[in-house]
Amino acid sequence: MIALNFDKTADGMLPAIAQDHHTHEILMLAYINKTAWEMTLKTGKAHYWSRSRNKLWLKGETSGHIQIIHRILVDCDEDTVVYQVEQVGQAACHTGHRSCFYRQIDGDHLVAEGSRIFDPAAVYGRKSS
Amino acid sequence: MIALNFDKTADGMLPAIAQDHHTHEILMLAYINKTAWEMTLKTGKAHYWSRSRNKLWLKGETSGHIQIIHRILVDCDEDTVVYQVEQVGQAACHTGHRSCFYRQIDGDHLVAEGSRIFDPAAVYGRKSS
Repeated sequence: MIALNFDKTADGMLPAIAQDHHTHEILMLAYINKTAWEMTLKTGKAHYWSRSRNKLWLKGETSGHIQIIHRILVDCDEDTVVYQVEQVGQAACHTGHRSCFYRQIDGDHLVAEGSRIFDPAAVYGRKSS
Repeated sequence: MIALNFDKTADGMLPAIAQDHHTHEILMLAYINKTAWEMTLKTGKAHYWSRSRNKLWLKGETSGHIQIIHRILVDCDEDTVVYQVEQVGQAACHTGHRSCFYRQIDGDHLVAEGSRIFDPAAVYGRKSS
């Protein structure tokens, strides 16, 4: 199993970027520890470590919007990875947008692009995943 | 000026992903603090905070391979940004590769893709930037 540089950070967390495997759109960034990394490699589904809930997080465990791994890229320092994925349900963001990066800077404003793919209240109730 | 959630981390650092503005290839990930963020917005050139040198880092200050900002995307939590850039000199990685993510996982191995665009020893001497 490929080893990453988990000792580099005090909390053993490294960033993982999820990117659409076809369009290369960046969908989200979340954190992985050794457990999440190993589960991702083992299952072929993107796992992260939820820092707010302090538990292993299979992306889509609540919404069903899992991320199927097509390819994993590792950076020069082995402290960041890119998951190239197929995003089931089209949307990665808990707000219902395709990407968490759905806003761009325009002068002193943030301007949203595109519309919501799903209604978060209908998918999560009051929770987010 | 757009405010990010720098209070979210103990050290005030947030990840910034640099992505080719045209192909959407992910070039690198580095960290920003408030100073680096403000310098990026002010100058239109990607700035980061070097954690190893503990100083402001204009990407390309040694190599000349600066990153010209075309667009900046902000995520739903305002704790991660994407710099969509034009990479001067073609290569973002201190190893001489176009992207820091030049290796992919193939079973239990890391397989490099593409060749070096420049020779790091010629560009940096013994330093890296």
